[in-house]
Amino acid sequence: MNSPSSTPMAPEISVSQWFNASDPLSLAGLRGKVVVIEAFQMLCPGCVSHGLPQAQQIHDLFPREDVVVIGLHTVFEHHAAMTPVSLEAFIHEYRLSFPIGVDQAGAGDVPVTMAAYGLRGTPSLLLIDRSGRLRAKQFGHVADMHVAYQIARLIHENAPFDGDHATDSDAETCTQNGCSAP
Amino acid sequence: MNSPSSTPMAPEISVSQWFNASDPLSLAGLRGKVVVIEAFQMLCPGCVSHGLPQAQQIHDLFPREDVVVIGLHTVFEHHAAMTPVSLEAFIHEYRLSFPIGVDQAGAGDVPVTMAAYGLRGTPSLLLIDRSGRLRAKQFGHVADMHVAYQIARLIHENAPFDGDHATDSDAETCTQNGCSAP
Amino acid sequence: MNSPSSTPMAPEISVSQWFNASDPLSLAGLRGKVVVIEAFQMLCPGCVSHGLPQAQQIHDLFPREDVVVIGLHTVFEHHAAMTPVSLEAFIHEYRLSFPIGVDQAGAGDVPVTMAAYGLRGTPSLLLIDRSGRLRAKQFGHVADMHVAYQIARLIHENAPFDGDHATDSDAETCTQNGCSAP
Amino acid sequence: MNSPSSTPMAPEISVSQWFNASDPLSLAGLRGKVVVIEAFQMLCPGCVSHGLPQAQQIHDLFPREDVVVIGLHTVFEHHAAMTPVSLEAFIHEYRLSFPIGVDQAGAGDVPVTMAAYGLRGTPSLLLIDRSGRLRAKQFGHVADMHVAYQIARLIHENAPFDGDHATDSDAETCTQNGCSAP
Repeated sequence: MNSPSSTPMAPEISVSQWFNASDPLSLAGLRGKVVVIEAFQMLCPGCVSHGLPQAQQIHDLFPREDVVVIGLHTVFEHHAAMTPVSLEAFIHEYRLSFPIGVDQAGAGDVPVTMAAYGLRGTPSLLLIDRSGRLRAKQFGHVADMHVAYQIARLIHENAPFDGDHATDSDAETCTQNGCSAP
Repeated sequence: MNSPSSTPMAPEISVSQWFNASDPLSLAGLRGKVVVIEAFQMLCPGCVSHGLPQAQQIHDLFPREDVVVIGLHTVFEHHAAMTPVSLEAFIHEYRLSFPIGVDQAGAGDVPVTMAAYGLRGTPSLLLIDRSGRLRAKQFGHVADMHVAYQIARLIHENAPFDGDHATDSDAETCTQNGCSAP
Repeated sequence: MNSPSSTPMAPEISVSQWFNASDPLSLAGLRGKVVVIEAFQMLCPGCVSHGLPQAQQIHDLFPREDVVVIGLHTVFEHHAAMTPVSLEAFIHEYRLSFPIGVDQAGAGDVPVTMAAYGLRGTPSLLLIDRSGRLRAKQFGHVADMHVAYQIARLIHENAPFDGDHATDSDAETCTQNGCSAP
Repeated sequence: MNSPSSTPMAPEISVSQWFNASDPLSLAGLRGKVVVIEAFQMLCPGCVSHGLPQAQQIHDLFPREDVVVIGLHTVFEHHAAMTPVSLEAFIHEYRLSFPIGVDQAGAGDVPVTMAAYGLRGTPSLLLIDRSGRLRAKQFGHVADMHVAYQIARLIHENAPFDGDHATDSDAETCTQNGCSAP
């Protein structure tokens, strides 16, 4: 996880359509809370088998006044196969209950928010602290215990950390756990 | 598994589009082989987590001259979400290599082959013997070891069995493992 | 997890033999750190499949200056089958690297520390805060994410919690996950 | 699996003590049935996590008139830790219900039957056909579906196979799945 001082503000998310949300969400509007963003594609096997169940578990476990979980459907391939119509049925069948936004289509294959964060693929887990800084960006599988510890540190953060893993971590290769972006 | 004498011929399958197949397949054309049909929906969690991996494993393990595995996309809900375009991307992402057919749309929500077989939902596993009789129809999760034993019995069948479980088996409830049809 | 104000001090542990420890450990000597005690039996299936791997993961993940993990071999049945000689081989084969103590034999079947804590069986997970209070006592399976969140809260605790689950939690039945004490 | 013609008779097993058996078993006495031998050690992680559950599943699934499952406790290390007293408690706690024999102690660390079969370690799965020939010897993890298919072939065998994998198969490395013998 990055230390606060070395970390820029997280770019605002650009969402064209929301599910499981009565009103649009924005990082600006969530300042003061820890925000967990699960970037996924509905046809990405690693997202289905562990990324999304993990996001649901975070949503279920952590107090809502401290932590907000957002799913971000960052489609960068097979666009015609993963439309919002298909996504809605997917959310229903997999019983996902946290807010899920469709990443705004961009000029090329990669959608706007995915490009702004420079994500390598899906699933990617983003952790944003109470002051709106992007503290961790992790591609592929991350152990539940590790994620929970990271989130809990951000919840209880009063003073800046002394800095640990300062860079993007992506220990897993793509083939087993995720889909790399072009 | 039904005994041969008590079992009618399996209804022919009605498929509107094939993937992973150079030519259309038919049960009539496969007479002499054991046919395993995995009826599934691409947004059915139990199909994704165990039904389809099991079908792939059967396809990989058993000799092609003895056993043919067919996936049958029996969409009975969320039709707009599970079109052939979406299915094609799904097959690609999940690396399914056995022939997969789209069950012909019917008058109502339930497609033609699914109705002909009276399937309760997805996943359903159908076992058809060398002479074209429907010997087993199983809804939900079935253990790998049990399935392999059933298939192997059909492969080595020379004389009629003396008959064991004579009826549809559906030991699993739907909520965890599958989606019941309306 | 209990709130600090409602929680008595954790009883000292009574250990007759240590593995993976150069010197005997005591709760008194660990004051200032969060202590995680995994009470287990080497022939308890739930301990082997999830309790001990979870304890190892805690030991590997959390900083040693904040968290100390202790395994406690609380044999309450089959005493002749789970001697320290067998335990030592077990620790070796399962590659457990955190300190493990043998709970002191008591007057009856239940050893001293197990009796002092009133444990229902194995596995049981005990969380002790920096000031030596027993904050959680959980029997059976506990999700990794939940455990990590609890430990992280204790690490970052500056002021007393406002109190959440105030009592022993044992959501799981014994048959699947653990062994109940007599 | 070896073809019958290329396969010698399986050496008789040497057992010093039986559990779950009213009378001692011998391969000679089981001629006419397919015999599945699961060679294991009670403190071998791969045996506990998959070898023994698989053996139990074979015992539960296949008809007793066709298939007999035997567990063989082939201790080649930590002898003092895996005595029959410990094994008995292990069998009880893990609810194993098939016959289990203790491999006769030999001159060195390796017990008699293990040496006679030239096993590389545990778990090892041995398949013996109705005529008493050793048809397969597999070290480490073997998929349920593959094992069931092999057993079913032996059950239904009327004529010799044309021979497939003719040698010992041990696709898995030891570290994850099993313990290599010295």
